[in-house]
Amino acid sequence: MVVGVVGLGLIGGSFAKAATRAGHSVAVWNRTRATSEAAVADGSAAAVLEEDMTSAVGSPDVYLVSLPPSAVVPWIDAHQSAFKNGAVLVDATGVKGSICEAMRKYAYDDTPWTFVGGHPMAGKEVSGYANATADLFRGASMILTPYPSCGRGPLDMLEAFFRTLGFGNVVFTTPERHDEMIALTSQLAHVVSSAYIQEPLAKEHAGFSAGSFYDMTRVARLDPGVWTDLFLANREALSSVLGGLIERLCGFKEAIDTGDAERLRDLLERGRAVIESMPPTYKSISRQ
Amino acid sequence: MVVGVVGLGLIGGSFAKAATRAGHSVAVWNRTRATSEAAVADGSAAAVLEEDMTSAVGSPDVYLVSLPPSAVVPWIDAHQSAFKNGAVLVDATGVKGSICEAMRKYAYDDTPWTFVGGHPMAGKEVSGYANATADLFRGASMILTPYPSCGRGPLDMLEAFFRTLGFGNVVFTTPERHDEMIALTSQLAHVVSSAYIQEPLAKEHAGFSAGSFYDMTRVARLDPGVWTDLFLANREALSSVLGGLIERLCGFKEAIDTGDAERLRDLLERGRAVIESMPPTYKSISRQ
Repeated sequence: MVVGVVGLGLIGGSFAKAATRAGHSVAVWNRTRATSEAAVADGSAAAVLEEDMTSAVGSPDVYLVSLPPSAVVPWIDAHQSAFKNGAVLVDATGVKGSICEAMRKYAYDDTPWTFVGGHPMAGKEVSGYANATADLFRGASMILTPYPSCGRGPLDMLEAFFRTLGFGNVVFTTPERHDEMIALTSQLAHVVSSAYIQEPLAKEHAGFSAGSFYDMTRVARLDPGVWTDLFLANREALSSVLGGLIERLCGFKEAIDTGDAERLRDLLERGRAVIESMPPTYKSISRQ
Repeated sequence: MVVGVVGLGLIGGSFAKAATRAGHSVAVWNRTRATSEAAVADGSAAAVLEEDMTSAVGSPDVYLVSLPPSAVVPWIDAHQSAFKNGAVLVDATGVKGSICEAMRKYAYDDTPWTFVGGHPMAGKEVSGYANATADLFRGASMILTPYPSCGRGPLDMLEAFFRTLGFGNVVFTTPERHDEMIALTSQLAHVVSSAYIQEPLAKEHAGFSAGSFYDMTRVARLDPGVWTDLFLANREALSSVLGGLIERLCGFKEAIDTGDAERLRDLLERGRAVIESMPPTYKSISRQ
């Protein structure tokens, strides 16, 4: 199978490396062509993908579009007439509602290729091709948000394909459900991490910290432009879980300020009970 | 050197294993004597420490008192006449102000042994002797908060001793400074983790989460009684950093709710700038 990887950042670079290792023929496109050439030179890809979607290994059957959120739809619009019949495109953007809405215009019978919204649940606190690795997706979830009109053919193909890249499971859901859950499991973590590290005392932590401080703050090393776009593309869901967290933190603060041991203990018991009710998968994906 | 380890939970058990591996003669005391006997049987200690502070390997030169916060001072009060002349006692409690205040009565010339407040900056999200390991302290900080009247002799001895257990550095500071910093680097992380996991959607996270959700929530698996005591023993410092965090989170929420991209980006830039200014030690202690 010929796999087109579009955008060679951390995610795209890792897609290219994982797909090449899995035996696929990988053709890569990047805004800066030199990065594509470097990926071919270092063995992460087989060929450079040209503007007309041809390459030395053929035209892609599957595209993994791993561009920044605001660049995905414009890139597809600009190249849409060059995709071959039957091609399947998957993006990798962290919010699905807005992209799936914008791409709906291609979800009709007169479009000879298929778009499926996607989000690989993997990442690192560092970015760029230099940090890409073929192991990034090992055991992770690949979330897909197809249109209801999408046939089983492309979805069965994608499920098998993403497993060859190392994903532990492929989850099919709606864009709305994805965005609601991701607000909690990823976006809120980035907000908290950034707010946490901005405590003035944080700069003096040396010698006073163990694992929990690092874990609470490491994802504050994010790309501010990308995450601003992602947050604002998912405003309602993110605001809802952020509001809930603030409310619970205020409850903790009140119990601490009033020295209410019973209430504090009860709050901590509740949190512990939730953790203990988590399925074994809770721990299965740890940080890269 | 004879090392007395008092209390065989996660920290005490790990102290015993690390000290035995370092070649010290380790005598252990535990409220439930069977655990002490098990530690001797499995090779983690050389002998059981009796109520009169004798053991088959002699009476301890150094005591590591690793009991729950509320049990430390009562245990020392009950055994204080049995410590041998020149013995040095170090506790392992996560808050230092209250314990160092309560122990001040022993900081005078007529007490033939020395107390030094201590806090090993290491841990796990699981507890108990069953999870103890000789490697727990590898590379971690050991914080000591001696009284101003304490001589260099015991402190030099402790610094060298804790390095034999695997600690990467030994930090000398005041109880007040310790408590202020620990409120940020450890206590606040536990509050946030517990509040985070209590979002109702958290139970449905399977398939939608990657490393950041796990990292944000893992320490919610804490001992509610112990942490209630620790939080309330450090109310002012914890309330201060918690209040600051809530304020910054409200700032994020306002920017998200009003769709203020510029402000949101600025907030994220600030967090990233702090992370990027961190010394290399920031990443050196990762979770166990």
